[in-house]
Order: sequence, then structure tokens, then C-alpha cells
Amino acid sequence: MEALDLIRTLNARPAVRSFNDRSVPLEVLRQIIEVARWTGSARNRQPWRFIGVSDKELLEKLGALGAYAQHIAAAPCALILLSADNGFQDTEFDLGKVSQTVTLAATALGLGSCLATIYPEANVTKAATLLRVESGWRPHHAISLGYPGAPMPGKRAITTGRLSTLELLSTHRL
Amino acid sequence: MEALDLIRTLNARPAVRSFNDRSVPLEVLRQIIEVARWTGSARNRQPWRFIGVSDKELLEKLGALGAYAQHIAAAPCALILLSADNGFQDTEFDLGKVSQTVTLAATALGLGSCLATIYPEANVTKAATLLRVESGWRPHHAISLGYPGAPMPGKRAITTGRLSTLELLSTHRL
Repeated sequence: MEALDLIRTLNARPAVRSFNDRSVPLEVLRQIIEVARWTGSARNRQPWRFIGVSDKELLEKLGALGAYAQHIAAAPCALILLSADNGFQDTEFDLGKVSQTVTLAATALGLGSCLATIYPEANVTKAATLLRVESGWRPHHAISLGYPGAPMPGKRAITTGRLSTLELLSTHRL
Repeated sequence: MEALDLIRTLNARPAVRSFNDRSVPLEVLRQIIEVARWTGSARNRQPWRFIGVSDKELLEKLGALGAYAQHIAAAPCALILLSADNGFQDTEFDLGKVSQTVTLAATALGLGSCLATIYPEANVTKAATLLRVESGWRPHHAISLGYPGAPMPGKRAITTGRLSTLELLSTHRL
């Protein structure tokens, strides 16, 4: 049961948007990708690539790309998740899967993280230019990464609880 | 580093499509959802619900719903992932996240699992009728669950390896 408890503990950790000054070494990003790259995907397409960014100016520019990317500007590092622009219906689902592995692996390494969505499409195009992404790949999602700083003052606008198992799970003859 | 190794080990486990006769107790499904329900989602919408199915006839009917659902028919149990039909762009991404937590939790509990996609849309509608899903929810994804049986003979049509970290990760000044 130990393994399950560990996943629960890592998964229940709230998102972190406030970081201290400690930088995220490239070796740590490599360790995260080394775990995340085994994530399953439809027909094993692995429709993802990753760009690690720690350049302050670039982080600020990325953080200006829409309402759901702002926290990137204050993070010491962002891991950009590139989605294959392949028209397959499963691609967003697969990107969600690998992002979840990245989040769990980052948490296991003591990092705080917060998902960002670069939105709308015009901002995805801007991000692609800033990051010099080759065509066929879309920087639509990113994960802010860093070592947790002091919690931000004030209450979060969004409730942080979760629905119970009883509310979430029904059964057919089990 | 122990926590990271555990996630890597669980994540690298290949999908399982061949199961023995042992049934999956409801309590085990509850343990999985108890972990998965903490998965983060856009604006904490939790755009997911779950239905556990172990009725053989129903599993067979669900397994007939498209080319990517067939393995459900041979599984002792399927966990249907309902997506909120809310029109939000993030919903499929969020469903991918929670499916990855389900997969890792199931593996931690000694289960084998394999993702199914119910496709095309007409089959999603058929599945909704079979499962008596209330409107506003789509049974678009499912996960076959069971205790691993003898590996299936023959070679898989899809390569099982993964791209290396070097191929997947590039950096901007890190």
C-alpha cells in the first residue's frame, strides 16, 4: 500500500505559484523527462516535446501570453510542453497524461509546479516565435517550476477542495 | 530519490490487455478514485466522473464500440471515464491527467490496465445509453482493469519503445 500512499501524497499537493530564488538545474529537468517519457500515448505517438526555459526575459514574455500563463513570469523555470500539431483527437488527452507525470515527478523532487495554458491561439503563435519552435509543434501548455517560496497572501479565487469518491464513482454490478 | 524511482517504475510498466479471472473488488476501485480525485484540473472544475463496470455482458457491448475499445470485452472490469460536455478546451487535457493518475494508482495496486477510446461520436452516444449516463457527460474514454494474465502471443503492431530524453528535451539558457 506504500506506493499508493506515495502517489496520493504527491497528487494531493496543491499547485505552487510562489517560488524562492533557487534555480532549477538542467539535471533536474532531465530527471523529470526521464520519468515522463515513459508515459503511454495513443498508438505510442509520443506527441510531445519539451523546452526548458530559465531566461528571465523570456519567462516574462511568456507570462504575458494570456490570463492562464501569468505565473510563468515569476517562476525561475518553465517547462514548455509542445503538442504535435497532428490533428489527432487524442493529442490533448495525451498531453494531459504526460503533464500529470511531469507534475508528480517534479513534486517527488521537491519542486513546486503550476500548469499554464497559453491562450488564445494567437498567443500560441507568439510563443512559438519566441521559443523558435519548429513547425508542426504548438507551445500550448507549460509548467512553472521552482522551489516553493512563501505562500502568497490573500485567498485563492478558486475553491481548492475536491469532490468525494462517493460523488465521483458509480457502478454497474460490481 | 526513492519517490521518483517508484513513479518511473510504475510509469514504465507496459499496458496490459490480457487478464486472469480474478475480479476487481469495488474497494480497489474506490482506492484508485480516492487517489485520482486529487488530480488538478483547470479552475478546479474536476470535469470527470467514473463508472465501474464488471458485468460481463455490458463489458462485451462496450468492447464492440469501435476499434480502440475492443480490449474492454476481455477485461474483468472497466473504469469508464466520463468527460463533462462543457465545451471547455481544457476538458480533454484534464481527462488525460486524471487517466494518468488512475493508471499509476492501478499499477501501484498490482493491476494491469489499458486505455480505451470510445470512437466515433455515435459510439459515445451508444455507450451513454448502455451505461445510462445522465446528459452533460460523455463516456469517451475507459480503462480496462484486471490482474495480469499470460501475455498474448504474437508481436504488437505498435513499437513499444520511447524517445530518449535527449530527443525530447531542448532548452533556452538553462
